[in-house]
Amino acid sequence: MKGYVFRGPGQSAWEEVPDPGLREPTDAIVRVDAVTICGTDLHILKGDVPEVRPGTVLGHEAVGEIVETGGDVRSVRPGDRVLVSCISACGRCRYCRESAYGQCLGGGGWILGHLVDGTQAEYVRVPYADLSVYPLPAAVADEDAVLLADIFPTAYEVGVLNGHVRPGDTVAVVGAGPVGLAAIATAHLLAPERVIAVDMSPARLEAARKLGAEAVADAREAPEQLVADLTGGLGADVVIEAVGVPETFELCTRMVRPGGHVANVGVHGKPATLHLEDLWIKNLTLTTGLVDTRSTPTLLRMAAAGRLPTSHLVTHTFPLDRMEEAYDVFGRAAETGALKVVLGVPQREVVPTSAS
Amino acid sequence: MKGYVFRGPGQSAWEEVPDPGLREPTDAIVRVDAVTICGTDLHILKGDVPEVRPGTVLGHEAVGEIVETGGDVRSVRPGDRVLVSCISACGRCRYCRESAYGQCLGGGGWILGHLVDGTQAEYVRVPYADLSVYPLPAAVADEDAVLLADIFPTAYEVGVLNGHVRPGDTVAVVGAGPVGLAAIATAHLLAPERVIAVDMSPARLEAARKLGAEAVADAREAPEQLVADLTGGLGADVVIEAVGVPETFELCTRMVRPGGHVANVGVHGKPATLHLEDLWIKNLTLTTGLVDTRSTPTLLRMAAAGRLPTSHLVTHTFPLDRMEEAYDVFGRAAETGALKVVLGVPQREVVPTSAS
Repeated sequence: MKGYVFRGPGQSAWEEVPDPGLREPTDAIVRVDAVTICGTDLHILKGDVPEVRPGTVLGHEAVGEIVETGGDVRSVRPGDRVLVSCISACGRCRYCRESAYGQCLGGGGWILGHLVDGTQAEYVRVPYADLSVYPLPAAVADEDAVLLADIFPTAYEVGVLNGHVRPGDTVAVVGAGPVGLAAIATAHLLAPERVIAVDMSPARLEAARKLGAEAVADAREAPEQLVADLTGGLGADVVIEAVGVPETFELCTRMVRPGGHVANVGVHGKPATLHLEDLWIKNLTLTTGLVDTRSTPTLLRMAAAGRLPTSHLVTHTFPLDRMEEAYDVFGRAAETGALKVVLGVPQREVVPTSAS
Repeated sequence: MKGYVFRGPGQSAWEEVPDPGLREPTDAIVRVDAVTICGTDLHILKGDVPEVRPGTVLGHEAVGEIVETGGDVRSVRPGDRVLVSCISACGRCRYCRESAYGQCLGGGGWILGHLVDGTQAEYVRVPYADLSVYPLPAAVADEDAVLLADIFPTAYEVGVLNGHVRPGDTVAVVGAGPVGLAAIATAHLLAPERVIAVDMSPARLEAARKLGAEAVADAREAPEQLVADLTGGLGADVVIEAVGVPETFELCTRMVRPGGHVANVGVHGKPATLHLEDLWIKNLTLTTGLVDTRSTPTLLRMAAAGRLPTSHLVTHTFPLDRMEEAYDVFGRAAETGALKVVLGVPQREVVPTSAS
């Protein structure tokens, strides 16, 4: 089969690789029908995630059909259409028993396209299939469902739920890329008074408005002032960091009110400065996290009910074998206006997005 | 009357000051019977808290008797023996309505010995008396009660409750000064499996053992290794920072397990480095806070029932007019072995404490 293989920093290709086979009785083999590319994949290509060994097939998000299952798999069978989650779960360790699947100690967690071959291929072996794939409602199209493999549960759990968004809150989301936009969309499930989006790209801020941001601010133009003006000088109740650089993290800690929450979602490669000389007295709660995907069943039901605006996030579609072109378009998002690129689904007219 | 007056960095004295009088109908005047010195007072003397104006009487902890009340005060009257809390509360602002008195927007919060004259004097004016003093049960001696003005609620709320200590947890407390020791004592109200104390002073680690620490570690000898050994390599469920320097804060973030809590109690004068490149994926919850004293009534009941080991914390007692000597003994704690010094109570034999 063909797969997208990491060959070391700066080197990767869509190339011939061995077909995956069952290794454990808890495995399933899935034929990949739709797959997407994550910002984390770009980090891997840059060499920021050194645990990924050269030779690994990338990708941790997919929709597909079960083609084979090991003898211990009970919850799915060949022919089932499933979502392949970015998180695998052994179901037996201390963390899995607390629904903290992202921290699985039994060989799960984030492994696909990281520690084992991933989903950017024609077929993928999914370990611990019973707890790591989700049967898909017919009402949810592949192109929408694939966004529930990672970005929607990540934005919802690590941003919105960790940030304790409550009805009536002012929520600021820093970074209006795919995860930030999914945070804006899912924050609205908790009935905030308003969501404020912060980014440098006018196109992304426009997308943020479409997904429910009542106010937007250019990250370079003192967005903390807009937040202060809208909150009587206090600051936002919840600030969600969806970029992953020290400057945006520190901006978040300046935008939050006393007693508020900063929920970090961004993947960071460098330390940040925590201004404890100002913050020690502010009753701040700060959270970090890898997604657990414990919310995936709920989000699938919401998507089936038409209550998640997933379709606004996909800007480009490609056939599976144009993976390299898709990486190029996604990697040059500032020029191409790409939000999420999805491969394997029927191609459609792409809504023109003005790049900034 | 006499009071201990801040005259600018490095300058202070026990000297004649005007008697306080009622200014608002919500004020009470309290005769100070017992008072203590806080680590924060030492910060003020060093010039670390620039909002304190020269001429301010210091101190934010006291026990005394109400001698006069304004016309709007309903919950206490002259003759009542009360605890003067470090936090005053208007009771009407958004934060007070959420019991977040420390963040009071109506002129309360931490004001005594900070923005208005404090308790290290013969008399003190207490604004918003109804919500800022607490009638004292007869069963609680002055010397014990005065520790409930600040350090016990601070350790309990900002350390133990913000840290979400739960039955069966491993709790590490970094810094075994008065607040750290109070955190060890109050953590035991939540039935942890074990509390591990970390400090550099053998005398303080010995005090930590008396207050319930099952294990102790020298801060200079890789205490994270002891924590890892005791927790199967995972780290502590909750780590409480009770020092207030970048090094100890960063140590706390290395001692916590994935999914655990770091509760910062220390008063910081400098920023710390937050290693988000390691921590983004660890599902960490980090909290900061000024005490709200919402737990003060509960802690008073626990003290009256003999369930708070307050007496282990007082190492030195002085008459009120030996304030300067008390500051000297407290300020040289590493030599004198001082934990809490209390003034105004009957002097007693001081338990010899080996200094380190």
